[in-house]
Amino acid sequence: MTAPSRGFPRAEFAARTRAAQGRMADAGLAGLLLTQEADLRYFTGFLTRFWESPTRPWFLVIPASGDPIAVIPSIGAALMAQTWVADIRTWPAPAPGDDGVGLLTETLSALDGPIGIPSALESHMRMPRASYERLRAVLPVTDDHGIVAALRAVKSEAEIAKLNQACAIAGRAFDRVPEIAAIGTPLSEVFRRFQMLCLEEGADWVPYLAGGAGAGGYGDVISPATDVPLQRGDVLMLDTGLVWDGYFSDFDRNFSLGRPDPDTADAHARLIAATEAGRHAARPGARACDVYAAMRDMLGVETDAGRLGHGLGMQLTEGLSLIAADETVLVPGTVLTLEPGLPTRAGRIMVHEEVVVIREDGCEPLSPFAAAEIQVID
Amino acid sequence: MTAPSRGFPRAEFAARTRAAQGRMADAGLAGLLLTQEADLRYFTGFLTRFWESPTRPWFLVIPASGDPIAVIPSIGAALMAQTWVADIRTWPAPAPGDDGVGLLTETLSALDGPIGIPSALESHMRMPRASYERLRAVLPVTDDHGIVAALRAVKSEAEIAKLNQACAIAGRAFDRVPEIAAIGTPLSEVFRRFQMLCLEEGADWVPYLAGGAGAGGYGDVISPATDVPLQRGDVLMLDTGLVWDGYFSDFDRNFSLGRPDPDTADAHARLIAATEAGRHAARPGARACDVYAAMRDMLGVETDAGRLGHGLGMQLTEGLSLIAADETVLVPGTVLTLEPGLPTRAGRIMVHEEVVVIREDGCEPLSPFAAAEIQVID
Repeated sequence: MTAPSRGFPRAEFAARTRAAQGRMADAGLAGLLLTQEADLRYFTGFLTRFWESPTRPWFLVIPASGDPIAVIPSIGAALMAQTWVADIRTWPAPAPGDDGVGLLTETLSALDGPIGIPSALESHMRMPRASYERLRAVLPVTDDHGIVAALRAVKSEAEIAKLNQACAIAGRAFDRVPEIAAIGTPLSEVFRRFQMLCLEEGADWVPYLAGGAGAGGYGDVISPATDVPLQRGDVLMLDTGLVWDGYFSDFDRNFSLGRPDPDTADAHARLIAATEAGRHAARPGARACDVYAAMRDMLGVETDAGRLGHGLGMQLTEGLSLIAADETVLVPGTVLTLEPGLPTRAGRIMVHEEVVVIREDGCEPLSPFAAAEIQVID
Repeated sequence: MTAPSRGFPRAEFAARTRAAQGRMADAGLAGLLLTQEADLRYFTGFLTRFWESPTRPWFLVIPASGDPIAVIPSIGAALMAQTWVADIRTWPAPAPGDDGVGLLTETLSALDGPIGIPSALESHMRMPRASYERLRAVLPVTDDHGIVAALRAVKSEAEIAKLNQACAIAGRAFDRVPEIAAIGTPLSEVFRRFQMLCLEEGADWVPYLAGGAGAGGYGDVISPATDVPLQRGDVLMLDTGLVWDGYFSDFDRNFSLGRPDPDTADAHARLIAATEAGRHAARPGARACDVYAAMRDMLGVETDAGRLGHGLGMQLTEGLSLIAADETVLVPGTVLTLEPGLPTRAGRIMVHEEVVVIREDGCEPLSPFAAAEIQVID
């Protein structure tokens, strides 16, 4: 497979902006204020790992008409100037007292109307609370009517190609796990070496790795790795969120250290069956809760994870949740993970995860789907 | 050097909590509400990469007396139960409609008084704006009087040992750069391989890598790597923020591809001289602005970076800034980077960075300080 090209044509950013503006007109918004990495990048292409530093806020303003306005620290001016954004207003951050809020207020005031800010689940305001309170006191801020999340939820072909690329890289790294994991290898060493494999196979970086290991399952899926060596009979699970050109993979693989016991083999087969049930349910017109129900029915039980999959894109998790309460309707371009989990023995679980994109006639795998038989490392 | 042990004794978390409560009493606060990863981890030890998922909010409440209360998604209950926190209240997130806000409001209401939230520079509220507005409407929320940032700014010996370990790992990775970078190597490949070196040398993960390459300097220090091959005469800079047990390194190294021209050699020597000036100025009683002035005077010029160093700890950048306006007084346990930058040719810069901790009689390097001569790769 040839790697897709990096970045997006300028026309794609313009189209995203016009689509937002169409919805803003319907909602009566004079502007959008964006403060989060993925939201800024969606409209500008501004891609940097510098967001890891919490110090400086970054603002993007989408006016009701015209092009986006970046209100950003001067350290980012050179990189922002490489994007399609022409109106770049900077201040020398960090500036105690007024860290860009004056410049932002001036920019937003000129729009003379309600300012929509993403406000629902997952949207944080990446700015100090004191700055938000200052803004709120002088400007008519409101929610963005879900406009940004709704646009981001439906991926373009260029975005799907990047997600597919990220998943392919992760798939190759998973194929090489037997090179780095064996009975006696500390789990922490497996984590370290697996991240190296992800990079070697082409990841730009590896923002997320979780997993676990234990007899018949693992305790949870968010704990960091301990130095405990893998033992015969353990189930090892690795779940990676690696990035290629700003787009995430998010799926996992389970491995049995030595021959699996019948319970483990059966649990893995049930997880794969539930994934298949989700895959068949995931089609245009189905709701997130329908996919959830199909998987839940196949599993027959629940874990504490809270959901059986989620949207995926510029963030490790974004958009819809596979839960009973989420009635989001799937459309072509929706990308989601199918992530069934099972309690196995007392206090332990097993989890499986794959990635699909909704197409006109069903869904297409973006990750290389695993077989029903758990892979054995011996 | 033996690696320090992971985690902290329970007594350290208890002492941090009591210190916060002492300051809360002075400020008249009935509780603190924390929503950000580093703040939660500081008081609990709750360490997970799961924060990469933006979906679920996590809350920690520090009451005026007694132990912290975690109000968190059920998926985190098992891991939180491994910390010293005994009062763990969960909900099955994500839950559209009320994603933990009801439970949080109930918890905070019982405190019956002003709730402090970190509100100054760098502190974001990691919860949806709509949830914050609901909270704000029924509870007396205010700023935290800088309590959390002030406590986090002064590192314990156990924290300093972790920072030193992270810097030592990065130092070993920098020493191996000639293995992975040569004339003709694409910069993107150098970035990928350097992250692998960081992991191989012992990093838990590599949340941050920046850098650049070009004749006589680079354009900025936040751009992602391109596929352009390194050329003879280029200056290559790599700046990594790797993590060991939740604590960051943050320093850089410059390399000359082939013999440096006199301008480059001179610029590097000036950066090292400015770093030394900062090192001598960095002592108890000095202010951040004094260290800035010492470095600025040695450089004679400025770049667009906005500051010449910053605090370091559980985040890549935290706390003080080396700028003219920051009058933070350095005390033993303050950890900061010295990060002088110089404009070189038209539109290009060079940057150097090291890490120190303030001690009773001056400061101690935590990173292995570079020599005045730029390292040559040939």
